[in-house]
Amino acid sequence: MNDVKAAMTPVDIEFWFEFGSNYSYLSVMRIEAAAERLQVPICWKPFLLGPIFRTFGWDTSPFVLQKAKGEYVWKDMERACRELGLPWKRPTTFPRTALLPMRVALVGAGQPWMGAYCRRMMSLNFAEDSDIDAPDVVADVLEQLGLPAHQIIDEARSEPNKLKLRQQTEAARARGIFGAPTFFVGDEMYWGNDRLDDALACASRLLTPK
Amino acid sequence: MNDVKAAMTPVDIEFWFEFGSNYSYLSVMRIEAAAERLQVPICWKPFLLGPIFRTFGWDTSPFVLQKAKGEYVWKDMERACRELGLPWKRPTTFPRTALLPMRVALVGAGQPWMGAYCRRMMSLNFAEDSDIDAPDVVADVLEQLGLPAHQIIDEARSEPNKLKLRQQTEAARARGIFGAPTFFVGDEMYWGNDRLDDALACASRLLTPK
Repeated sequence: MNDVKAAMTPVDIEFWFEFGSNYSYLSVMRIEAAAERLQVPICWKPFLLGPIFRTFGWDTSPFVLQKAKGEYVWKDMERACRELGLPWKRPTTFPRTALLPMRVALVGAGQPWMGAYCRRMMSLNFAEDSDIDAPDVVADVLEQLGLPAHQIIDEARSEPNKLKLRQQTEAARARGIFGAPTFFVGDEMYWGNDRLDDALACASRLLTPK
Repeated sequence: MNDVKAAMTPVDIEFWFEFGSNYSYLSVMRIEAAAERLQVPICWKPFLLGPIFRTFGWDTSPFVLQKAKGEYVWKDMERACRELGLPWKRPTTFPRTALLPMRVALVGAGQPWMGAYCRRMMSLNFAEDSDIDAPDVVADVLEQLGLPAHQIIDEARSEPNKLKLRQQTEAARARGIFGAPTFFVGDEMYWGNDRLDDALACASRLLTPK
C-alpha cells in the first residue's frame, strides 16, 4: 500500500489568470508556495479577460461597469492584502492592458522562471502602479531574472504565439470560465482567489501515478 | 482594566439579506450560532435585491443573466453546502419571489423568533424547493413557531410595513450594497457568505460600552 502511495502524486491544478485582474494578483503571489507545500503541480494558463467580458456585452471590467461593486472591491483588496502580507497600491489605470506580458507568460508557462516572472509582473501592476505593457518594462523584468529578454520577447510577439494566446482564451470561454482567477482540478472548477485553498486541497487528495 | 472590559460588549453586525438569494441561505443558516460564540449582536436587515438589480439595468439575478457564472454557482453551492453540512436542492424557480416572507422578516427583525423564522424560510427555498411566497406557507411556518400567524401577516401587509421595506431597500442602495448577503460592522462593508467570518471577527474586536 505504501509502495502504491509512493508511486502516486497529486493531480495538477490548472491556474487560469490575467495580469490585469486584481484578484489574480492575490493568487499569483501565493500559489507557488502553497502548491509546493501540498506537492501539487501547477499548470499555468494565462488567458485574456477582455474577449471573455466582450462575450457578455461588456467593454471593460465589471468593477468599472458596476460602480458600487467597484468601490467595494478596492476596500476588499486592501483588507485581503493586509491579511496575506502583500503590498498593495490601487492602480491608477484599471484594468491595465498587459498584452505583451501575457504573451510572454504563454512562452514561460512550462519554464522554471514562470512563477518569479508572474510575481514580478503582478507586483509592478498592483504594488508599484507601473505600466506593465511597455516593452522596456517587460525586458527589464526578464533581464533581472537572468533571461535572454529580446529572444523571449521576439518569441512572444511571433504570430504562432499570438494565435496560441487567442486559442487559449477561446479554450477558457469554452470551458465556462467567466472571470479570473479560475482553477480547475480535473473537471472541477473553482472561481476566485477565495477558492484557491479549496482547489489545492482537492488536487492534493486526487493522486495519480507518477 | 478588567472592570472596563467587563462593561464592554462587541459591536453589532448588520446582516443584509434576501430570501431569494442562495448565498444568503448559507449565512442565514449559520449566523446566529457563529455570532453567539463571539457574543456579537445581530442586527437583521432584510431588503429586496430586485430593485437594487434594476438600478444596474438587470431584470433578474446575474446568475440567470450570465449563463456561465450561473452554471458555476450551482456547483459552488453544492460544495459549500456539503462543507457546511447543510441540505441543498437547486430550486426549480430562481430567483424565487419572497415578498410576503420578506415583509414578515421586517416585522420579526427585532423579535426573538427571527433567526428560527429565517432558517425555516431559507430551508423551504433551498433545501425543499417550495414556493415560499404563498401565504399559507408563511402562515404554517409562523404557526409552527407558536406565533400568532394571522396577526403577524396582517402587520406585514400593512401599508406602513410595505413602505418600510421599500425604505430599507433604498437604504441598502444608498449604503453601496450591490448583492446579498452583505454585512456591515460600523462603516466596514463585507460582501458575500465568504466574508461572514471576517465580519464577525471584526465586530468581536470592536468593543463598545454595554
